[in-house]
Parts: sequence; structure tokens; C-alpha cells
Amino acid sequence: MKKIYLVGAGPGELDLLTVKALKIIKKADVILYDALVNEEIFQFCKENCLKVNVGKRKGKHLKQQEEINDLLVEYAKTHEVVVRLKGGTPFVFGRGYEEVRAIKEAGFEVEVVSGVSSTTSVPESFMLPLVDRKFNDSYRTITGHDIDVFKSIVKSYHERENLIITMGVYKIKNIVEYLLSIGFPKDLPIAVLSRGTTNDSSQKIFSLDEVNNQNEEFFEDLKKLTPAILFIGRTIHAMKEIQ
Amino acid sequence: MKKIYLVGAGPGELDLLTVKALKIIKKADVILYDALVNEEIFQFCKENCLKVNVGKRKGKHLKQQEEINDLLVEYAKTHEVVVRLKGGTPFVFGRGYEEVRAIKEAGFEVEVVSGVSSTTSVPESFMLPLVDRKFNDSYRTITGHDIDVFKSIVKSYHERENLIITMGVYKIKNIVEYLLSIGFPKDLPIAVLSRGTTNDSSQKIFSLDEVNNQNEEFFEDLKKLTPAILFIGRTIHAMKEIQ
Repeated sequence: MKKIYLVGAGPGELDLLTVKALKIIKKADVILYDALVNEEIFQFCKENCLKVNVGKRKGKHLKQQEEINDLLVEYAKTHEVVVRLKGGTPFVFGRGYEEVRAIKEAGFEVEVVSGVSSTTSVPESFMLPLVDRKFNDSYRTITGHDIDVFKSIVKSYHERENLIITMGVYKIKNIVEYLLSIGFPKDLPIAVLSRGTTNDSSQKIFSLDEVNNQNEEFFEDLKKLTPAILFIGRTIHAMKEIQ
Repeated sequence: MKKIYLVGAGPGELDLLTVKALKIIKKADVILYDALVNEEIFQFCKENCLKVNVGKRKGKHLKQQEEINDLLVEYAKTHEVVVRLKGGTPFVFGRGYEEVRAIKEAGFEVEVVSGVSSTTSVPESFMLPLVDRKFNDSYRTITGHDIDVFKSIVKSYHERENLIITMGVYKIKNIVEYLLSIGFPKDLPIAVLSRGTTNDSSQKIFSLDEVNNQNEEFFEDLKKLTPAILFIGRTIHAMKEIQ
């Protein structure tokens, strides 16, 4: 039975692609790719490989996801090696599971090829450990795009746990205000890690209180740093020790 | 200044090595590697590359870590390209940060090369999404090897959050007993994901209550499945839909 490959492209830096992903990309007849995928990857494709940008536009998520699912199935009917190339790794946010289900329902096989997740590699690229026993024992990975969902999950402060928040920059004001209201310390550091692993990467570090006292201009400037990951926790002090 | 490479080897499957890691391994003069690293990787090494197994033995962690730090520095003094090859990715558990600090203190540069983390890729290899909006919005990654630390972090049940527990199989009885005591539902599924991404992989799925009612033989048998990741949460129902 024909198989569709759901492949993680990694966080951005070209060489953080896996050997397995590279082998599949080399033989692909069609690649459907996200906005977050580094297009330099296409230098490895066959000459006649069809590259389809299915990057979602803001506010049109649901419709677009159904379209992507349909496109995957349509291309599988007419092409031999169909690749769905996703930023990071397929099953960490990003609707990878929904695509798998749609492909299976249409009667095709699917192989999930893990990539380097941005949630782990972006902090690493700034020399920021996800876990270091001096400061913490665990980390929580959550999206910040829906503040109500965020509030329903993060209900108290855990001194030895870091928060890793994807898609949180647009909501950073609300997130920080909320965290302070449930007892997160005012001096707790928060790092805005922008475009990690790319040549265009940058970091900004504040305390929660500093963020809470900013004006609108500050928040508008932060939005220019997307895509970015918010990292909140004392382990940021570890980064400062070695950077 | 001479640079030491701290490189993630990925979860086990050889091809889940990154292109960047592969390039560095090819030019390595010395590789200090962990117990969890797939030794097939050495087929890519130069003929005269020195391979040093620094896998830690149980109960001798602290002393061994200092020895590894010292070894890294000693080899950097006498060899050109020194690689510290770690299972998964360098800064997700595993003392990567302590090694960086030791290397920097000795006056050498260090480059951290992210790998595919087992915490994300092992669930993916079993078609288990870390996040699927039908079931959850976030996940918490924590080690299970110290039950007191575990208890201090996980204090309540969050219906839409998964738990990903590394090194938890030896403590699964205590972990499950504790989770039930703080209100985790009896019917909540727990998956034991053994040796994910290798040819020797296997999965076992139970409810928390089922685990809680087992005898010692059951727990002894589970220990044979290490290394394994425990995954707890309703998203396991998603896996069942597509496997």
C-alpha cells in the first residue's frame, strides 16, 4: 500500500535535519510544507519534485487544515512519494495527528519521521538547559495562543519547573499578568528566544515584573520577533553563567 | 580556541541522527559516549577515532559525572576534535549543562548540537501525539527516578495535560499510587513505551487502576523493558484510533 511520510524538518538550521528526513526528501515527488520549514532544504530534492506551500494564514486555521488533509490524499493518488514536511517534529503541536488520521481514513499508510523539536532545540541553541539539577527537575510545554486554555492548565507556581511556551509572544502581556496573579515571583526570569538556530536569532531576558510594567510599544516590538519561544524559570540563571 | 562538541545522538534509530551530528562524528578524534547511544554510529568514524564508553553505573552517578568532566578536559588537551555524544539531546536531562560548565571553566569553547529527544520521538514512534487538540493542550516532562521530587512538582490532575516520565519504570508502583491519591482518574491510561525507535521496541497500555492492583512479579517484568518512557494521559486514546 502506498505510504505518505510525515516528516519533521527540525527547528530551522539546515543541518539539524535528520539523516532519515534527508533520505526521504531526496526521493520525494511532492512535498507539502509549512511556513516554518527552511526552504534551503529543497536543494536536496529531485529536479521535478513539486513543492507546495501549505503555510497557514492567521484566522483561517480550521478550513486550511481540512484543505491540507484533502491535498495530501489527492497527491497520494497521483504521485509516488508524498512528503508532508513540518517544522520541528510532527506530533508536537501543529495538527500532525489530524493529518495522520485523514490519511489513514483515505486508505493510505503513513510513516511519522521524528525531527528535532523547536521546543527543546531552541533553548539549547541559546545554551539554556531544559533541565539542570541545580535549578529544576521538569518542564512544561504549552502553547500560549489561547489564554483561557493556558489558565486552565497552569494553576500554580512550581519552583523547580520551567515553562516552555510556544506561540506566546502575542499574548505575553496576558500570560505574565496571569502568572503574577497566581503567585509566580516578580523576579522570576523570562526569556524571549527568537528564531533560534537560524542566523537571525536573538534573545531578550526580563523579569516577570519588568514585562508587566511595559507599555504597548514594547509589546508591539516583541511581536516582530516571532516565531519565538517563551522560557520562564530559574534555569535562565544557568544560561547566564555560561553564555 | 579549541572547541568541544556536545552532540545529541537521538533516540536510538541510527537514521534519526542529524546531518550536523554526522558531520562532526566523521571528523572526531575522540568520542566519549553514553550507554544509551547506538554504537552503530561508529561506522561513520575515522579509522583511528578513539571511542570511550563513559556510561554511568547505577549508584555511582556523582563521582562518575566528575570523572566524565575531567576526561573531556584531558582529551581536549591532547586531541583535536573531541566529541561528547549523548543519548537524545544534550540539555534534556543527563547533566549536559554540568559538562558545559566544566569545559568552559577549563578554558575551552563548547558547541551544543541538538539531537532528536527521546521524550518527543519515542511517543511519536508509537504513533502517540504529544499534543492533539481533541485530547490535550500541553505536556509535562519529568523524571521518575526520585519520587519525592516527582511529588513536589506534580500536585494535581490536569485533564488536558499529558505526563511524560523518563526513568520512571523502577518507580512506577509509587508513581501510580501517588497519582491516584491526588485525584488522577482510575481509568486514565498509562503507556510503557520500551526502547522506542529501535527494532526491539514494545508498548504496554494499562489503566492507572490496573497498575495499582498488580503484584511484584508484574513490576519485576516491567523492569526488563528499560530504557522506557511512561506516558500518562487521555491522548493515548488518540493512538489507539490510528495504530
